[in-house]
Amino acid sequence: MTTKLSPDDLVGAAGGGLLHRRVLLKSGLALASAGFVSVGHATDTDPAKAPAIENPASPSWMHQPGSPFSGYGVPSKFENRIVRSIGSNRDLPGNGVSWTPLESIEGIITPSSLHFERHHNGVPDIDPAQHRLVIHGLVRAPLSFTIDDLLRYPMQSQMLFVECGGNSNAGWHEEPIQRSVGSFHGLVSCSEWAGVPLAILLDQVGIDPKAAWVIAEGADAAVMNVSLPVSKLMDDAIVALYQNGERIRPENGYPLRLIVPGWEGVVNVKWLRRLHITDQPVMARNETAKYTELLPSGKARMFTFVMEAKSLITSPSSGQKMRGPDVYEIKGLAWSGRGKIKKVEVSADGGTSWMEAALQEPVLSRCFTRFRAAWKWNGEPAVLKSRATDETGYVQPERDVLVAERGRDGYFHYNAIVAWEIDEDGAIRHVYA
Amino acid sequence: MTTKLSPDDLVGAAGGGLLHRRVLLKSGLALASAGFVSVGHATDTDPAKAPAIENPASPSWMHQPGSPFSGYGVPSKFENRIVRSIGSNRDLPGNGVSWTPLESIEGIITPSSLHFERHHNGVPDIDPAQHRLVIHGLVRAPLSFTIDDLLRYPMQSQMLFVECGGNSNAGWHEEPIQRSVGSFHGLVSCSEWAGVPLAILLDQVGIDPKAAWVIAEGADAAVMNVSLPVSKLMDDAIVALYQNGERIRPENGYPLRLIVPGWEGVVNVKWLRRLHITDQPVMARNETAKYTELLPSGKARMFTFVMEAKSLITSPSSGQKMRGPDVYEIKGLAWSGRGKIKKVEVSADGGTSWMEAALQEPVLSRCFTRFRAAWKWNGEPAVLKSRATDETGYVQPERDVLVAERGRDGYFHYNAIVAWEIDEDGAIRHVYA
Repeated sequence: MTTKLSPDDLVGAAGGGLLHRRVLLKSGLALASAGFVSVGHATDTDPAKAPAIENPASPSWMHQPGSPFSGYGVPSKFENRIVRSIGSNRDLPGNGVSWTPLESIEGIITPSSLHFERHHNGVPDIDPAQHRLVIHGLVRAPLSFTIDDLLRYPMQSQMLFVECGGNSNAGWHEEPIQRSVGSFHGLVSCSEWAGVPLAILLDQVGIDPKAAWVIAEGADAAVMNVSLPVSKLMDDAIVALYQNGERIRPENGYPLRLIVPGWEGVVNVKWLRRLHITDQPVMARNETAKYTELLPSGKARMFTFVMEAKSLITSPSSGQKMRGPDVYEIKGLAWSGRGKIKKVEVSADGGTSWMEAALQEPVLSRCFTRFRAAWKWNGEPAVLKSRATDETGYVQPERDVLVAERGRDGYFHYNAIVAWEIDEDGAIRHVYA
Repeated sequence: MTTKLSPDDLVGAAGGGLLHRRVLLKSGLALASAGFVSVGHATDTDPAKAPAIENPASPSWMHQPGSPFSGYGVPSKFENRIVRSIGSNRDLPGNGVSWTPLESIEGIITPSSLHFERHHNGVPDIDPAQHRLVIHGLVRAPLSFTIDDLLRYPMQSQMLFVECGGNSNAGWHEEPIQRSVGSFHGLVSCSEWAGVPLAILLDQVGIDPKAAWVIAEGADAAVMNVSLPVSKLMDDAIVALYQNGERIRPENGYPLRLIVPGWEGVVNVKWLRRLHITDQPVMARNETAKYTELLPSGKARMFTFVMEAKSLITSPSSGQKMRGPDVYEIKGLAWSGRGKIKKVEVSADGGTSWMEAALQEPVLSRCFTRFRAAWKWNGEPAVLKSRATDETGYVQPERDVLVAERGRDGYFHYNAIVAWEIDEDGAIRHVYA
């Protein structure tokens, strides 16, 4: 039930006008009385002066029957600008990426239609009746599975993010890139994945004690392959058949995708056709030419599978414009490949002071967590930041710390704190601050 | 990590071959050794006899570049039979229902494209720039909100089922209906809904102490309206703008839907345009001619808003066929309008003995809960049932108990235990048992 705000609630909890998260924690809070909202058509709050707003004139769509039923629904035509932004090779249109428009989504589930894509040679049009998953190599008995076979196995579902290891890599640029938050950081999406725990299939083929690695291969025209430790695959990998309730979309691996919770996107092999059990990695292009990085020490990082904790403010964010001094909801997404998000702090003064944001329940392991904070912007220049901490205690680093550690050859696994600068006109820019 | 099954795990935990849920609880369980799975292309498990299954011949789609990127993705053409089944009025095609194909979905999220529909006069094509939400009546200051106004308010998201009060009403028939589980019980779906807690808006207009009811009205050509107690709306209702991450689909209320957690679908008013605050219900068609039911006592039930606990086995289910004696995963969905599902029991002998099923995490309040159980079917006739208990202690009733309580004039709120009979040929029928 409604809990009224007290005047104490409206005292800044951190610099730059951040309000305590109790302002947002309960649905019934009287945010209106806090001046939280500016309603375009608000009437005077003095009842004596309030004009009579009654049943408004009925619009045209109430005067004629609407559209009939549909077997498979689609969005309103008024939302047709909400799409993935595409960056592909002009000569090889199937090579590139498409980004999830993070600034346009709410909650923690990414619609499958807007899940980011990374393809090397396009999206294969796979006939599931002809598709096979073969598990072979250092095993007692190699097996070949049809999709119908796999559909008979016991399943599990889990809400998990998948993030490309190259997501946010514009963060390594010398100058801060000016793009929407989705076109900068949108190579990450979150779905409910359902399928067969891979451990069941590996038990069935019988892994040789000498086995240490698994080479996973996709059925696309690039024959994508990568190496993974057997131990991780036995622990929690899923051979996924379903995404957000329905069969996986073609661009996300139909009919089968290897889901490796919390690990970089490239190892979540799409169109999965083969798992070759071996005693050493294959040293594929995507673990040598890519995904291996030279450090300032002269040594190289390799097989850096886990996506570390990260957070982003999606609103207000780069390219948007403030509508003037008012109270705003700051909202964003946080995730960690190591488990649950423990807290997200936000700052409105570039990191001088921080306040804990409210985390939307449920907070799930290796899943998007939505955070929210109330902020009274007084119209002066400000710098917004968010900082995630996961349940292992890992804290998302400032950019200068990440760059010092990884050097100027960094390209993958960019998870530094992101800063949005707001000027006195309300324009919002990405800055290094 | 992998936990091997012990021989004890394979002793029946209840009649008819049900196996203890520990068989399913961990991903690493060696179900293969339990003979859980029958792999169409399985090789002999004696390594001396195992044929060499190696890298299979590459299919045609690996020999040519695939499709380029898409702004907004769609399912594979091989899945085009997975659609809502439609039952509409021949003369008024916008009047009727469409059912979610529950037998074809996995996990707990229903894809928005497959969310059930119930319309009285079709789906209006609403221009969000022209749409208004008016809140008026017994208030201090009536207000009119544009969609842009509402998008500025603090939001919440929640995974919640919506179920039509008339779902499963074929269960009241004298003879058990023979349809797929989706076309019988599929007027229920589960989404992540995000929007503005209604309490914030009600606080802002200032509810008069005399107010007790709210008349919620939609902007469709049927001008759907219903009455709701103010207390519930202040407690947890949401003015939803987003469904599963993106803006609500037209057939689910674009651009605004009233979400009333756990309450019958009809009060979750789509295309929400007006909330009229009053001291008494409006006695609309959908609370008098419909949704009011005569009881055997001669009294009538009315304003029976809450959807009580219910469960269904979606696989194996009516109209499907067993593939012969084997170990199967029984799986299904459970939900309760009163909170979380506490347990789901399954029976393979028509209710003589019961075993607790495994519940898939996360188990959330007023959300679908996926349950799973392992079953060794010996090929003899069997009757499968599931029975949900929610956190209030409410237990889903057997059909004869529900019919005795509600009488032969029952039509709405059918939540009895569902029974699937399997004959010696493996055919599956709906029965009253």
